[in-house]
Amino acid sequence: MLTPVVVARKSLADYTHIVGRPLIEEIRELAEPLKGARIVHLNATSYGGGVAEILHTLIPLMQDVGLDCEWHVIYGQEEFFQATKVMHNALQGNPQAVSDEQWAVWHQYNEMNARELSRGWDCCVVHDPQPAAIATLEPGKARAWVWRCHIDVSSPNPATMQRLLPYIEPYPASLFHVRDYVPDGLDGGVHIVPPAIDPLASKNMALSRDDAEHICDQIGIDVRRPLLCQVSRFDPWKDPQGVIDAYRIVKERRPEVQLALVGSMASDDPEGWEFYDATVAHAEGDPDIHILNNFNNVGAVEVNAFQSLSDVVIQKSTREGFGLTVSEALWKGRPFVGGAVGGIPLQIQNGKSGFLVSSIEECAARSLEILEDADLGTSLGRYGKQFVRENFLMPRYLRDYLKIFTEVL
Amino acid sequence: MLTPVVVARKSLADYTHIVGRPLIEEIRELAEPLKGARIVHLNATSYGGGVAEILHTLIPLMQDVGLDCEWHVIYGQEEFFQATKVMHNALQGNPQAVSDEQWAVWHQYNEMNARELSRGWDCCVVHDPQPAAIATLEPGKARAWVWRCHIDVSSPNPATMQRLLPYIEPYPASLFHVRDYVPDGLDGGVHIVPPAIDPLASKNMALSRDDAEHICDQIGIDVRRPLLCQVSRFDPWKDPQGVIDAYRIVKERRPEVQLALVGSMASDDPEGWEFYDATVAHAEGDPDIHILNNFNNVGAVEVNAFQSLSDVVIQKSTREGFGLTVSEALWKGRPFVGGAVGGIPLQIQNGKSGFLVSSIEECAARSLEILEDADLGTSLGRYGKQFVRENFLMPRYLRDYLKIFTEVL
Repeated sequence: MLTPVVVARKSLADYTHIVGRPLIEEIRELAEPLKGARIVHLNATSYGGGVAEILHTLIPLMQDVGLDCEWHVIYGQEEFFQATKVMHNALQGNPQAVSDEQWAVWHQYNEMNARELSRGWDCCVVHDPQPAAIATLEPGKARAWVWRCHIDVSSPNPATMQRLLPYIEPYPASLFHVRDYVPDGLDGGVHIVPPAIDPLASKNMALSRDDAEHICDQIGIDVRRPLLCQVSRFDPWKDPQGVIDAYRIVKERRPEVQLALVGSMASDDPEGWEFYDATVAHAEGDPDIHILNNFNNVGAVEVNAFQSLSDVVIQKSTREGFGLTVSEALWKGRPFVGGAVGGIPLQIQNGKSGFLVSSIEECAARSLEILEDADLGTSLGRYGKQFVRENFLMPRYLRDYLKIFTEVL
Repeated sequence: MLTPVVVARKSLADYTHIVGRPLIEEIRELAEPLKGARIVHLNATSYGGGVAEILHTLIPLMQDVGLDCEWHVIYGQEEFFQATKVMHNALQGNPQAVSDEQWAVWHQYNEMNARELSRGWDCCVVHDPQPAAIATLEPGKARAWVWRCHIDVSSPNPATMQRLLPYIEPYPASLFHVRDYVPDGLDGGVHIVPPAIDPLASKNMALSRDDAEHICDQIGIDVRRPLLCQVSRFDPWKDPQGVIDAYRIVKERRPEVQLALVGSMASDDPEGWEFYDATVAHAEGDPDIHILNNFNNVGAVEVNAFQSLSDVVIQKSTREGFGLTVSEALWKGRPFVGGAVGGIPLQIQNGKSGFLVSSIEECAARSLEILEDADLGTSLGRYGKQFVRENFLMPRYLRDYLKIFTEVL
């Protein structure tokens, strides 16, 4: 019932010209003694969302450097995913705690999956809380266990976190994006490892200006006029309505400005659709606001085109797990304005690669500043791209994992 | 409550080099006396699915040639869309008829939307059955009415069709894809007008071989090995599982062959997801079968890349409204193998631009024939592209509409 995921083949060598030879050599040296190590990653889904996106690059690269690495998706039915959705929201701070019944469902599915997991793994990397109990339930199935937390647990619902912690503590290594996210009471084995983007993925590959313009033009953007853009799911924490308000302030001074809100929708998220509809309503039919999602034929290349052409990329989040869309935008050399929350300040050095803001007015003022000073935009973008090259590309992330495998094995 | 849709600007002149000057001039002449005519299109959704995709090109072109053309999406809540889904399936031949209660819901929402529709239109073009009653309910709101049927109503559930017909008959003009789809008892005003693709849309634009290869490579296709591909929704009538069976026969003779099934999922279609999961299960983890959807970051450009790189494009439908993916594939010069149903035989001349098949074995045999004879593939593709250029590109479709407007106004 654990479903193995088939991944593409990728070659670390293809990244040499992007990240430089020293990092590639460091990775090969770290990988040498790990050759043939049997690694399995467990998570809840093979597509949709950032975790799956990362694993679709990370796992092929682990295979390429010689690990015997697999990715299995755990089994769950609706009741399980409903329980883990409540858990996810509670861990991100929602006041509604996980109920006893939901804990029981979570535990029961973890038991099923733990039982199903085959034996003989050198290391099992468990992603996020959905399958977190497996290490406790079947510790003998892997020599070492790693828990990777992808969410913002800096101010969790205390009852939910207290009840989850006993399942996390047994892991010899746990990974968090940011120091602030480490739960109180979790000592030992904690690693701070930010995630990374894949510069070769269709979402981030070098797209010619011509192609990017054609794609945006077809969607209705006037490519000769300035464009603000936010790429994010439609949820209140990403504050797309605040972005619209900021755009309106900018538009008073620069009436030619356009805004694109580009996001993917989950298939089974009625709240997401409600918020999407509310965002569309908030735009009040303004023809210069373009709200797009994966049901408008918008995929990775279209997102790439929007980010590549934007004069300012915005991520006005009020809460943010890590916010890899920031690195995506910086990698395209675009100036950035974003909320000073979650992993965003790790990616943006205020004033150097973009601006951190905490209000609609500030967001508008910084966007205007960039629109009115082309040199500022260029220098922010250039600095940001270099910063991402050094810190937030997939080979660095692979190296960090290899170091941890070296430690725990 | 009728929601106007903001569309991109498009220019007919951009199509001149593709379809040739004579057609463009014919369109301009037809448009001249229609300048300023107030046209409104009514349908059920602004994105997702073929109708919205067509309107996103057709309406900007109608505006470009001088019509005062708008597109309004009707209002409906879940009960309405549930009723119209049953109606849609019944009209396509499902034995389950629309219930009295569902007819009442349909009528009630049509009344609401008819009331909301503003006055003073020269022509109102109503798409598909969802808003079909509006012409009968508020005939005075437009000088002329056109009904555009996008679905296969060749063997409808008789009770449902009988009850719908009185709402269709009053339209002075109705448009069907294929002569076979015209309901018995509908005389007068019938036009056979096939739909068309937009050669400039991101899904059909010329993509460099390099870019297409990069995109497919990132998704896990080995671009040096042969690829079969079907682009379609995951529903039984598209028979993706039959495509897998045909691929398996091909693979016995050509073990290096790969298969991609690429489709978009609707957001609120549990049956669609069940069938998707069943299709994934049918693939039995074969690493050479790639099943992709709009939740894997697959958008228009990715679909373009798959079609452009395929050695054989398949559309093994057993039922097909029109099947514009056929013209999409032919436009990329790809050889084609498809079911001899719906609009597919209109687009494929058997043996010239591809092959019409009616079984898994035939589908496999024709695919093999193409894989084993590169010259055959090239000549089929070349013929198909020219046939699409002459028959299935958007300017031809625009011309047909202008002729009908000329007739009814």
